[in-house]
Amino acid sequence: MRITVLAGGVGGARFLRGLKAATPDAEITVVGNTGDDIDLFGLHVSPDLDTVMYTLGGGISEEQGWGRDGETFTVLHELAAYGAGPGWFGLGDRDFATHIARTSMLREGVPLSAVTRALCERWQPGVTLLPMTDNRVETRVTLAVKGEGEAGGGTVHFQEWWVRLHAEVPAAEILFTGAGSAAPAPGVLEAIEAADCVLLPPSNPVVSVGAILAVPGIAEAVGAKTVVGVSPIIGGTPVRGMADACLAAIGVDTTAAAVAAHYGAGLLDGWLVDDQDKEAADDPRLAGITVRALPLLMRDLAASAEIARAALTLAAELRSGGGGDEPGAPS
Amino acid sequence: MRITVLAGGVGGARFLRGLKAATPDAEITVVGNTGDDIDLFGLHVSPDLDTVMYTLGGGISEEQGWGRDGETFTVLHELAAYGAGPGWFGLGDRDFATHIARTSMLREGVPLSAVTRALCERWQPGVTLLPMTDNRVETRVTLAVKGEGEAGGGTVHFQEWWVRLHAEVPAAEILFTGAGSAAPAPGVLEAIEAADCVLLPPSNPVVSVGAILAVPGIAEAVGAKTVVGVSPIIGGTPVRGMADACLAAIGVDTTAAAVAAHYGAGLLDGWLVDDQDKEAADDPRLAGITVRALPLLMRDLAASAEIARAALTLAAELRSGGGGDEPGAPS
Repeated sequence: MRITVLAGGVGGARFLRGLKAATPDAEITVVGNTGDDIDLFGLHVSPDLDTVMYTLGGGISEEQGWGRDGETFTVLHELAAYGAGPGWFGLGDRDFATHIARTSMLREGVPLSAVTRALCERWQPGVTLLPMTDNRVETRVTLAVKGEGEAGGGTVHFQEWWVRLHAEVPAAEILFTGAGSAAPAPGVLEAIEAADCVLLPPSNPVVSVGAILAVPGIAEAVGAKTVVGVSPIIGGTPVRGMADACLAAIGVDTTAAAVAAHYGAGLLDGWLVDDQDKEAADDPRLAGITVRALPLLMRDLAASAEIARAALTLAAELRSGGGGDEPGAPS
Repeated sequence: MRITVLAGGVGGARFLRGLKAATPDAEITVVGNTGDDIDLFGLHVSPDLDTVMYTLGGGISEEQGWGRDGETFTVLHELAAYGAGPGWFGLGDRDFATHIARTSMLREGVPLSAVTRALCERWQPGVTLLPMTDNRVETRVTLAVKGEGEAGGGTVHFQEWWVRLHAEVPAAEILFTGAGSAAPAPGVLEAIEAADCVLLPPSNPVVSVGAILAVPGIAEAVGAKTVVGVSPIIGGTPVRGMADACLAAIGVDTTAAAVAAHYGAGLLDGWLVDDQDKEAADDPRLAGITVRALPLLMRDLAASAEIARAALTLAAELRSGGGGDEPGAPS
């Protein structure tokens, strides 16, 4: 079985760990969000790709859900002693090595997709991890009010809004700068087209999955497949992170039904919601989307695997019911 | 008093520590060798500048004489896990931060001299530390025989010869690539011209002082001043390092007299040798160079200060005796 997953960071990585456990023999391709990528200290940091790579490769900090296990912070402290900023992004020494290795290859002209493949040779994540694009797409946030330390109250890099400002300053708009002229990375469209189903993990629908879908060609390719998503909202609250702040910026309510309606029936065929959100099945905005309710909290690997299994079961039902392309159909 | 010193790494830094102790009120400018600079993991490493900066700023590893005190090696181990090379250059985590900060500024277009000034704001070395040039000069070694892992037996970066090959493969030639079109960094010629004397510490005469003198304009400016050097050779043996291997490459014997003769009376006015090399005073090649013998081993700060004091005393004598320019003479 071939499965393609559009993943952000922590939520996507945990879902993927469950998916691998649920279907060990599947060929899984992960299209990772790179809109959050940021240059820090002259180094190219790819937070979402790294979270997936570290999580599936066994190098993640389990407590945090991101960053390396057993981290130390010598380099960051030393950089602070030089007055080199920013200090608000907590890069550990082990993590720094990844960014040094990545940046070194990028500077030699190696595209991000090939760099990611090289880094994955160490981590052996058991999936094919692709960045959504080799071009630079930057998720930026237009602040609704002047941010602390912001001169014009203009736009800031997503990471600055998310990490430095804790998304406490409301976002007026979320922009994917560069997306319009970006192309899917080599293999991305092919993996989507060859997939038996495309899964959307409970990643941030705006800045993670949304950034990936903003790359021209990806949304169209995904829409042509059987697509099952997992709600990142349980009982009106994001399972993790501050997705509500992102949803508010694009005028979408923080409910499982509203997120599915935002994706739309053109993209989504199936939608897994938590038991407490089962009334989403009756939401008229979700016509054409098959909603199924189950416990959605990814407490542990077993729970994540159960959710992944439910997504695959629903996708199989939808495929056999004609809800999407037949496996292997020409595209 | 204004003193300008042409310095390499460890020997230069230890001499400078003695010089500061000997003459706390002097304005000292250090012109540092950057021919040893090397890109490692995409980061710009300036070994000699850092050794001077760390030594005078109190951050040096006293045991090694180079690198930071209290180092850890997390980043380097992680890079090795990625298969990123080279592994033969022992960069510690604290040191990595310096190279990250430096590289970040260089990539933004800040010249090395301004980067060095910025890094020194943290270390407060008590001297003005200038790179010999803001241009890229690379000391390369033509191997006399094929080196291990070397395809053509051609040239290697000095650091590769020195650190990886331990200078065990004889050098046929030492080249300062880029020197011909390099210009002294801002302030270098001015500091030499304004100096009461120029001192040559017991740094490597070939690859440290030699690289600095290879930058067009510097040798001429230095030659016009009262110049006192300290022999890096004691009793036919380099005090530190493998200067003999470098001297052999340029056909100079490993003796205090031969090194002074190599510098020549056009450059050198005074030459400090160790007591066991006092016969250098009678060497006909050293006509025009005043030789003085004293204990030259820089065992500790007091010994280094004593040597610096002797250099300053000799320089003052040579100046008053007409051995060089008068202080403040137009140049």
